[in-house]
Amino acid sequence: MADIDLATMRQAQQRIAPYIHQTPIATSSLLDQSCNCQIYFKCENQQKVGAFKIRGAVNAVFSLSVSEADRGVATHSSGNHGAALARAAQMRGIRSFVVMPDNAPTVKKEAVAGYGANIRFCEPTLPARESTLQRLIEETGANIIHPYDDVRIINGQGTTALEMCEQVSGLNILLAPVGGGGLLAGVAVAMKALSPRTLVMGAEPEQADDAYRSFRTGVRVTDHRPNTVADGLLTTLGTLNFAIIRRSVDDILTVPESKIVEAMKLIWTRLKQVVEPSAAVPLAAVLTHGHLFTDKKVGLILSGGNVDLDNLPW
Amino acid sequence: MADIDLATMRQAQQRIAPYIHQTPIATSSLLDQSCNCQIYFKCENQQKVGAFKIRGAVNAVFSLSVSEADRGVATHSSGNHGAALARAAQMRGIRSFVVMPDNAPTVKKEAVAGYGANIRFCEPTLPARESTLQRLIEETGANIIHPYDDVRIINGQGTTALEMCEQVSGLNILLAPVGGGGLLAGVAVAMKALSPRTLVMGAEPEQADDAYRSFRTGVRVTDHRPNTVADGLLTTLGTLNFAIIRRSVDDILTVPESKIVEAMKLIWTRLKQVVEPSAAVPLAAVLTHGHLFTDKKVGLILSGGNVDLDNLPW
Repeated sequence: MADIDLATMRQAQQRIAPYIHQTPIATSSLLDQSCNCQIYFKCENQQKVGAFKIRGAVNAVFSLSVSEADRGVATHSSGNHGAALARAAQMRGIRSFVVMPDNAPTVKKEAVAGYGANIRFCEPTLPARESTLQRLIEETGANIIHPYDDVRIINGQGTTALEMCEQVSGLNILLAPVGGGGLLAGVAVAMKALSPRTLVMGAEPEQADDAYRSFRTGVRVTDHRPNTVADGLLTTLGTLNFAIIRRSVDDILTVPESKIVEAMKLIWTRLKQVVEPSAAVPLAAVLTHGHLFTDKKVGLILSGGNVDLDNLPW
Repeated sequence: MADIDLATMRQAQQRIAPYIHQTPIATSSLLDQSCNCQIYFKCENQQKVGAFKIRGAVNAVFSLSVSEADRGVATHSSGNHGAALARAAQMRGIRSFVVMPDNAPTVKKEAVAGYGANIRFCEPTLPARESTLQRLIEETGANIIHPYDDVRIINGQGTTALEMCEQVSGLNILLAPVGGGGLLAGVAVAMKALSPRTLVMGAEPEQADDAYRSFRTGVRVTDHRPNTVADGLLTTLGTLNFAIIRRSVDDILTVPESKIVEAMKLIWTRLKQVVEPSAAVPLAAVLTHGHLFTDKKVGLILSGGNVDLDNLPW
């Protein structure tokens, strides 16, 4: 297996630099006052395709050999990875195929289509996604780029933390949302290398708490029936990600649905950032577990901003 | 009368620097493609108090002598200037009084109150605002800081363009919304000094088109019954501002309500920036008068982001 470490992430950072944005850090003194801590928001909602997912996707697509690239790329995704892979393929000038659940938000379906992907819809379950993808691969010969359980993806997502360390130093805690675990695994490896005293924590909806339960029990949970407004965090923790998260993440915090909506509204109101519900889960963790953050310097990844404006959760 | 020129604006820029944010520039390649031009959005929605208005307010409040400052400051405002003046007064540690129309958005009422201002509500007409303010001044002795028809305010707002010129060069056109005219007058003076070949244009709702009619006829329109979703642009063009705008602005473009909402949604979707309807009026002008902007490098001021999330216009 290829490596996931600081060296491979630095290579990924160089590889993807021409294709992605260096995203800004946002702060709010009013929000800091009300949370009793200093929060530095990494605005990956302003990233290309509106989510950090472009980092991993570009890293994967531009890691392919010419002959591999000729066969195109394929994936299943609830949306942001699909859009990111389609955009990355478009950047390299190769074909992409995306399997999407038929209940994905309209805005995400349109984004994937807009980047020129061939879309195939399926039932919103992991088995349906995987079997649909398998048939697609047999038909097309495309390279599967898994949304999160893939070395190239994890290295790509980890560059978020490399970039953040150049922008803010001395973080006591770094918080990232956890769904499939690609972002959390990547940033944990990066932070433990660059800033070993920074605690790395995942934030997850109570109603989609497979990573929390896996982390606590040491056994990867697969009987997962998530039901959360955070539509980007419905996926089950990947095996590769779980191994890294067990080793490098300090804790996983869960949050109730009401706090996700409250945090989302706070981010819109105070930071003027459009974020999707999944991106609000880390701030929801600060609101829910305030005592852990008092007087701390906290980094927080706003993972994406692809939300259906006609269907807001308030 | 005190001056409004590049020198006074540079003094204002120094005076206010410790109290405001240097706001970022946002871009979107997708939006550029669909508009056939390159647009640089100056994100004053991310400014302190969520609007460019803090620039003028801080400049005015910190221009007062100690004995003047002791009497406090007062104004009437549909919201953002009120919040900005209250915050500026709080920064200097002096009293503030704000007259607000009773139909102002809840989010703006709360913001003004949150910055410690004494609020007095009145009917939503210019005569009611002015008479209420007059009574307040007689009672308190506070210094009136007019929302826009004031040299210190215009110099403060003009710093938006000074800052923008440091961030982006070679703009063909600069677009700003126009309500009372403080922002448009200030940025026009700044741009004509720093970048005389840049066209400066105001953007205004068709249904609040007093600046457009004043500019076209050469006579300041005062029979003004605005009816627009852009609640920050309900005010009538100031006399001082009108004189500057006639001299330094190249054109004023009007836009229908439907384009304001369309532009607002585009900014939220593509730039992931929360902006209020007034801030979307310049992009609405690009959408409405596209031929003027083809292949141009366009600067556009996102004037504010204070919007009631429970009452969005779509």
